[in-house]
This record gives sequence, C-alpha cells and structure tokens, in this order.
Amino acid sequence: MPESSLRPIYWEDDVVAIIDQRLLPHKRVVLRCTEPQQVIRAIKTMAIRGAPAVGIAGAAALALGALTLKAADPQTFRRKFVRLCRQVKEARPTGNNLSWAVEKVYSVVVENPEADVFQLRRLIREKVEALMAEDVAANRAIGAWGRKIVPSGARILTYCNAGALATADYGTALGVVRAAFAEDSSIHVYTCETRPFLQGSRLTAYELMVEGIPSTLITDNAAGSLMHQKRIDVVVVGADRIAANGDTANKIGTYTMAVLAKANDIPFYVAAPRSTIDPALADGSSIPIEERDPREVTHWNGRAVAPKGMAALNPAFDVTPNRLITGIITEVGVLRRPFKRTIKKALEA
Amino acid sequence: MPESSLRPIYWEDDVVAIIDQRLLPHKRVVLRCTEPQQVIRAIKTMAIRGAPAVGIAGAAALALGALTLKAADPQTFRRKFVRLCRQVKEARPTGNNLSWAVEKVYSVVVENPEADVFQLRRLIREKVEALMAEDVAANRAIGAWGRKIVPSGARILTYCNAGALATADYGTALGVVRAAFAEDSSIHVYTCETRPFLQGSRLTAYELMVEGIPSTLITDNAAGSLMHQKRIDVVVVGADRIAANGDTANKIGTYTMAVLAKANDIPFYVAAPRSTIDPALADGSSIPIEERDPREVTHWNGRAVAPKGMAALNPAFDVTPNRLITGIITEVGVLRRPFKRTIKKALEA
Repeated sequence: MPESSLRPIYWEDDVVAIIDQRLLPHKRVVLRCTEPQQVIRAIKTMAIRGAPAVGIAGAAALALGALTLKAADPQTFRRKFVRLCRQVKEARPTGNNLSWAVEKVYSVVVENPEADVFQLRRLIREKVEALMAEDVAANRAIGAWGRKIVPSGARILTYCNAGALATADYGTALGVVRAAFAEDSSIHVYTCETRPFLQGSRLTAYELMVEGIPSTLITDNAAGSLMHQKRIDVVVVGADRIAANGDTANKIGTYTMAVLAKANDIPFYVAAPRSTIDPALADGSSIPIEERDPREVTHWNGRAVAPKGMAALNPAFDVTPNRLITGIITEVGVLRRPFKRTIKKALEA
Repeated sequence: MPESSLRPIYWEDDVVAIIDQRLLPHKRVVLRCTEPQQVIRAIKTMAIRGAPAVGIAGAAALALGALTLKAADPQTFRRKFVRLCRQVKEARPTGNNLSWAVEKVYSVVVENPEADVFQLRRLIREKVEALMAEDVAANRAIGAWGRKIVPSGARILTYCNAGALATADYGTALGVVRAAFAEDSSIHVYTCETRPFLQGSRLTAYELMVEGIPSTLITDNAAGSLMHQKRIDVVVVGADRIAANGDTANKIGTYTMAVLAKANDIPFYVAAPRSTIDPALADGSSIPIEERDPREVTHWNGRAVAPKGMAALNPAFDVTPNRLITGIITEVGVLRRPFKRTIKKALEA
C-alpha cells in the first residue's frame, strides 16, 4: 500500500505500481509493472510525469531491470545493465532528475566491483528505495524552507503540477503550499490549468482538494490579469532542469508567469531538490526542450478541435532566465542571487 | 447567400442567418432567426462572438424587432423599441460595439420623428444593412493601414479570433493579416488557441486555412517562449472596448501577450474600428469585465476535466494598459502615443 494516496509510484513486493496520471482525477488506475520497458513506456506516455517522479520511475525501471535481466555472471549483468541505463535516460530529455537518478543507481554497480549478480540486484533495489525516501525528505525540507517565503494569508499562484504526484511524495512547489497551509489556513491557491496536458486542472486541483486547501482554478491566460489586479502575492513553481547560473527549464508557460510576476513586482520562486540542478550546464541555452505530439494541442480526448490539417507546435518546456527568479527553494535552503555562487555552495552542502 | 463563406451573419430576406460558431470548424450550422430574442440568445451563448460581429448582431436583432413588434401606432412602436434596445445592449457587457450599434440604430427613430411604423421598419432595416457594409469597409481600411506595420516575411502572432467571423466580414487583426498576405506570401501566422473557448484553434485556424495563409497553432502558454526565442516579429490583436486613453479590453490573455511583447521588444498592435472606442471612459479601469460560467474552464464538451467541486474563475476579458500598446490600427490610420490625443482626433475625423 502506498504511504499516501497521492504517492505516484511505490513497490508492491517486486512489482512497481504507478498511478496512471493521464486518467486522474476521475479514475484511479494503477499500472503494475514487472518489466523495465513497462516503466519506460509509462514515462514516455506521461502516465507518470513531473521531473522528480520521472527520476524515481527511471530508478525503479533499473531495479526491475536488475531483477529480470538474464545474466549468469556479473560481467554480462553489468553490460546489459549499462545498456538499460542508457535507454532509461533517453525516455524524456528535458528533466535533469532522470539522468541524475540513473547515475545514482548506476554508481552502485561501479562502487561494488566484487558483487555478484544476486548482491547487485539487492544493492540496486536498496538504492532505489533510498532515493525514494530521500526525495520525500528533500520535499519536506523544501516545504519547511519555503513556507517562510509565503506571507500570512498569501494568495499563491502555482503552475502545472509540482505536487506529490510529481515527486516521490509531498511535492516541491505544492510541498511549499502544504507546509504553509499547515501553519496558516488562510492562504489561497490559484492553479493554472496548464495546457495542453492540464496538469493544473487535473492533478494540482485534485491534490489541493484532497488536502482541503482553499483554491481556484484558472486558465493559463487569466494569470496575468490576476497579477495585474494585485490578486496574487507570490508565485511558486517547480522545475525540470536548473542550469549552474539558475536559468530554469519548467513546464511550457513558466517563463510567461515569471515575466508577468516581474512586471507586477510579485516574487517568483522555483522549488526543486538539488537533483534538478545540472551543474554541467553553464546556462539555460543548451537545455534540451522536448517537443511533443502536436495532437496534444489540436485534439482533445482524441477528438479534433482545430481544423483538419492545421499545423501545431507543442514544446513541452520553456526556460526562465535567472534574472526573473527571486529565489530557488531547495532542501538546503532558499538560494538567492547570484545563483552561480549559491547553487555551487548548495551542491557542496 | 453570404458574400463570403466566413461572413458570420447575413440576411436571407427577412431572416437573420447566423453561423453557429460554437460548432466550427467541424460543423457549419446556420441559425435562422426570425425573432430578436433568438439573436440575443445567439449573442449570449456565443454562437456569434467578436465585438464588431456582436454589434452587427445586436443591430440585426433590432431590425427583426422592428419587423415583428406589435404596434399599430408610432408611439407604441417607439416605446417597445426602446425597451428592446435596452435588452439588446445588455446581452454582453464588455464589448463597446454592441451599445454603439444599438445607439446608431436607435438614432434612426430619433432622427425621424414624423415617420410611421412602416417607414421606421424600413429605415431601421436600411440602417442595419448600412452598418454591416460600413464595418466591412472599415476592416478593409484597417487592413490597408495595418499591412504597412507588418515587416516583410514577418512572423505574426495573433490571439483569439479577430477575423471575418468576429466582424461583418474580413476581420480586424486578421484583416491586417489578410492585407499583408495579399502583398507578401512569405508571412507566417502563429495563432494562440485561446482558452477556454478556443477561438484561436477553432476559428482563427479555420480562417487561416480557408485563406491558405501559412500558420501554426500554439497553446496560449507557448507564446512567451516563442517571443523570447525571437521567433515572433509583431503581435496584432483585436479589441472589445478601447478607453479614451487607449487602455484596451480584449479577450482574457491579451494583457499577458502585451507584457510578453514589451519584455521582448516586439511591437504590439491593436486593430479595431472606431466603433470599439468608448470616449466616455477616461481609462480602462471602469471597463466592465464579463465573468462567464466556470464550467467553461472545468468542463470540456460537458465532460468534467477538473475534480468535482473545484472552484474556477472565468473572466472573459482583461485590460491592457496603453503603455504596452505600440499602436492602434483603425480605419482612419494607425494611432500612436499619446493615445488620448490621437484617439480624440480619430473620432473627429
């Protein structure tokens, strides 16, 4: 059983259970995966999404792979496992947490050169379970740091879903909301629906209702008007990849929210664990931006909305320049400008 | 028969024919109205929408009213007609063109104190037909002025639908696009889907495909990223009401586009006939903003998207402050700052 009804991925003995988020909030269907390819498919089709949750899912795919790889000797196991690591890493390109998690799991193989296949299987499974627990702990720490930047009675705008469903549990941006609400029940959350996948109306709204946090759903294009009318006090969003200088890739539309916040003197915070930071990238310009099927834009539940043959562009992410970000809420504290220095320090902490 | 297949409203003898835009682009259903209440209903339910088209529809409702009002003497006719004028004006609150058109039609009654019922019916019908023709002429003039602000090979972003379907014909923002395309087939249009009613993906995309103008559909939240990447050269939108100082109410999300354009040094133009200008309003702060049914946000084709019971806010318009507007393209020229002066002059022209 999952520890929380919002935990998007958990073990049932040797089975990886994944809530199919494409069907939420109306249906709770659990995908039970016994093969790594099933988990990779769940990542690619966005049955599980959210950079930290995708990282956890990637790790779980590796644990399933370790369990099911046909290998009589450690050499064969290592060779096949490396191939699987590469496959998992490529499931989605933009989020940093996936490759971070794969590296973490792979380090078990590197650090235990004498281990036999049986031992490697156990060590890898233990590592994956540790990563899950660490992600939850990181999110709780993000919440604890983050609630300090939420003013009393704040009207908080959030975007996409950076909640329990996007992580191992508890959430990053919604972790901040949860922690703030625990202390101050007078906050109010505005959640943007987040086209085209509607993570806001389907998932964030669902989490907020489960928690009983007062909230209102708006279309993405209504956020600017609310900010302009001084009806938003702070913006908190998640992140998929943060460059060494603080430039942040997140769900398409995040850049727009940051520009609107800046234009209206509203603090704009990114909440993310350090596993989201990619210190190898000097800035956001080389973050790979995933382009998804245009049918996510032209169709709705398989039914065409746009005229037949209409071309559509569907970038899944955008990059918010560091100058638009007030602070980055991590598990080791709220990082401020200059981000290059504070991010470096946070990674060393 | 309509002069153009995109003309949203036209006469068939004494019947007002309205294309039901809620069903476009997939079905072309024509509502044939013989009573003013049918037209008012079409306005309220957005079967016809777009401020200038709503103005024309309101005028047409009055013509139908004039035709069908039971009145043996001019006094009874006038009394009943005034009541109908008030009803029509209240059909939708934000656009200026509706009350403008009602005033124009009502002026026939005022200016012909000696006319009998039969004469009034004829004069009103003639006035309505003149308003329709004038709107088309205004839009063609807007196009002629507007094409001059479109750079060669421009990538134009437009929002919502300010096309033929939003006017008597030809369109305002899309009138500019049509005129530019007639001279330069290398332009490219990005159209935002425009949640929640999807005027962009359903109507603007349809008009652009009918015209063969190269175009790409994007979600509203992708516009910022495109602008940031220097993939947009100019933004052109329509308007629902323009205050004396140039502050402009238009479809929710327009303010966001203007802020994004400003942040990325992209010219932002409003295209609208003078009937959209409300000189009685000093600025945009007192423009009435229509709030529509939250179910437009929480549901899709009657099917819930958000969890049951989720609250939603659905303002249909927002106000863009004049400082974010590069120019207002009218039928008498492109108005520049200071708008207070240039708008006054344009209204006197």
